[in-house]
Amino acid sequence: MKRVRIGLLGCGTVGGGFVRLVEQERERIRSRFGVDLELGRVLVRDLTKERPGVDPSSLTTSAIDVLDDDCDVVVEVIGGVHTAGTFIRRALSRGRDVVTANKALLALNGAELFTAAAHRGVSIGFEASVCGGVPVIGAIRRGLAGDSIESLTGILNGTSNYVLCRMEEGLELENAVAIAQANGFAEADPWLDLSGEDAAQKLGILAQIAFDVPVRRLSVTGIGGVSRGEIERARAVESVVRLVAEARRVTGGVELEVAPRRLPREHPLARVVDEQNAVLVRGRAVGDVFFSGRGAGSMPTAAAVLSDVIALAA
Amino acid sequence: MKRVRIGLLGCGTVGGGFVRLVEQERERIRSRFGVDLELGRVLVRDLTKERPGVDPSSLTTSAIDVLDDDCDVVVEVIGGVHTAGTFIRRALSRGRDVVTANKALLALNGAELFTAAAHRGVSIGFEASVCGGVPVIGAIRRGLAGDSIESLTGILNGTSNYVLCRMEEGLELENAVAIAQANGFAEADPWLDLSGEDAAQKLGILAQIAFDVPVRRLSVTGIGGVSRGEIERARAVESVVRLVAEARRVTGGVELEVAPRRLPREHPLARVVDEQNAVLVRGRAVGDVFFSGRGAGSMPTAAAVLSDVIALAA
Repeated sequence: MKRVRIGLLGCGTVGGGFVRLVEQERERIRSRFGVDLELGRVLVRDLTKERPGVDPSSLTTSAIDVLDDDCDVVVEVIGGVHTAGTFIRRALSRGRDVVTANKALLALNGAELFTAAAHRGVSIGFEASVCGGVPVIGAIRRGLAGDSIESLTGILNGTSNYVLCRMEEGLELENAVAIAQANGFAEADPWLDLSGEDAAQKLGILAQIAFDVPVRRLSVTGIGGVSRGEIERARAVESVVRLVAEARRVTGGVELEVAPRRLPREHPLARVVDEQNAVLVRGRAVGDVFFSGRGAGSMPTAAAVLSDVIALAA
Repeated sequence: MKRVRIGLLGCGTVGGGFVRLVEQERERIRSRFGVDLELGRVLVRDLTKERPGVDPSSLTTSAIDVLDDDCDVVVEVIGGVHTAGTFIRRALSRGRDVVTANKALLALNGAELFTAAAHRGVSIGFEASVCGGVPVIGAIRRGLAGDSIESLTGILNGTSNYVLCRMEEGLELENAVAIAQANGFAEADPWLDLSGEDAAQKLGILAQIAFDVPVRRLSVTGIGGVSRGEIERARAVESVVRLVAEARRVTGGVELEVAPRRLPREHPLARVVDEQNAVLVRGRAVGDVFFSGRGAGSMPTAAAVLSDVIALAA
C-alpha cells in the first residue's frame, strides 16, 4: 500500500468538496489503486469557521505550513493568479507534485510552471481546470495522443450557457444573470464569465495540449451584446445562440476564437443546456469525438482533482 | 529520444491503418512525446499481397518471428480468441507490453491476461477494444478514477445502430442489414453484432474497469426481434429504438443488460446515429458524463491503438 500525503491549499467550495470526497472514496481507492490517501495540512483563511469532516488541528492560515510539511502532492484550489502561482512555484521547487484547478494561472503562466515541474522531475495535474468533471484534458493528452487534432470546439463556460438558456425562455440578459446568480451559477461579479475571458483561458489550456504550433490569433467576444431579439431570430430558423470557443489549425499555427454563435438545433453543442460544458474534438484519424457533462460545481471539480491525485500516486 | 520498437500481429483493416498512422504521425510523436516509433516485424497471412507503406522485408507469416523479435511492445490486431490469446500470453511472458483491440478475448480471458501482465510487470493497453476512437477506457480508468461510478449506459455496437437507423427510414430488418453490409458497416455474418453479443463483450470490459463488485446478472437481447411496427410505434411517441447496453450497481454487485429500448428523442443516446458509439457514465460526484464518436473503422481504431502505444512508451 502506497501512502500519499496531500497538502491542501484552500478549503472553500472545491476544497471542501475535495475533503468530503477523499473521505467518501478512501476505501475504494485503497482497494482499487493500492493508494492510501492521507490529508495533511489545510490552508484556510478563517480558522474559526465550522468545517465538518476536517480535523481542526490540520488547519492553518500559513501556506508555509502546508508547503513545508512533508507531503507528496500539493492541491491548489484557492484560485487567483499571483498568490496561487507563488505557492505552486514553491511546492514544485520542493519536489512536490501539484494538482490545480486554476485555469487563470495556467492560461497565464502555464508554460513556465510546466517547465519548472519538468526541471524538478515532478508533475502538474490540471484536469479540473477545464470542463470540471469531464475528463477532456486526459482524453486529449493521452486518449487521443495517437492522432493529429484538427480543431477543438466547445462550450467551456457554464455561466454564459446558463444565461443564454434563460434568455431562450424569454428573459432579458440582466434578469437571466440575476437568476444565474441566485442559483449559484454566476459570481457576484459575473464579468470574467460573461466577457468570454474564462472560456478563452480554458480554450488556451486545451490548445496548449492539443496543438504543437503557436497561437496566431486570439479573438474574444462575450455574450454582453447578445439581445433577446437575436435569440428570437435564431429560434425562428430552428437555431440557438451559444458562446462557442474554437481552436483550429491554420497555416503556420492555430487560431483561437470565443464568440456567441448561432447553431442549428441539431448541432451537438446546441444541445448543451444550462451549466453544462462540452467539447467536440476533431481528429484527423478519429473524426469527431464529443465530451459533455457538468463543467463546474464543488463535487465534479473535486472529483477531477482527486482523479489527478490518484494518477500521480498510482 | 526513446526508441520504441513495435511488433505487429495482423495487417488487415486495423493493422494496415495502424501502419499508415504511425508513418503519418511519427514526427509529431517524436517532437511531442520524445518517442521514436519503429515498426519491427509484421505478421501477415499472405506475403504476396500488396501493402503500400510496409517494408516487405518486415513481413512474416510466423508469429514467433514477431514475438521473439527484440521489440518493446506487441500490437495484436488479428482478432479471434484462441490464437490471439496464445500470442498475447507469449508476448507477456517475454516481458513485452501489449496493445490489443480484441474485445472478445478480453471479455473472455481479460482477468487472466491482466494478472499475467501484472505478474511480469508489463501492461496491456486496450483503449481500442471499446468505442474505437473514443477514449472511454482511459476516461473511466484515470479521468474518473476519483469518483464512484453508479452506472454506464451506452450504444456500443455500431452495426446494430446503423441497422436501426435504416429501419427508421422505412426498411425492414433484412434490407437494413443488407445495406449495412454493402456499406461496410456489417460483416458477412452479422450475428455477433445483431445478437447483442458484441455489445455485451464491450459492456463487460467497461464494467470490469468501472466497478469493483461482481457481476450478478447478465441479460442479452439483440435486435433480431425488432420489427418495423415497433419502430413506427416509437416514432408516434417521439421516440426511437436503440440497442442499449447498461451496467448498474445493485445490492452486492452489478447487473449488465443489453437490449433494444425505446428512448425519447431528447435522450442523449437517441441522438447517436448510424455507426456512432456513445457512453453515458453516471458518477456519484460528477453526475452524467457523455462520450460519443466513431466506434469502429480502420483509422479511429488505429488511432486508439497508437495512443495506447504512446502511453506505454512515454
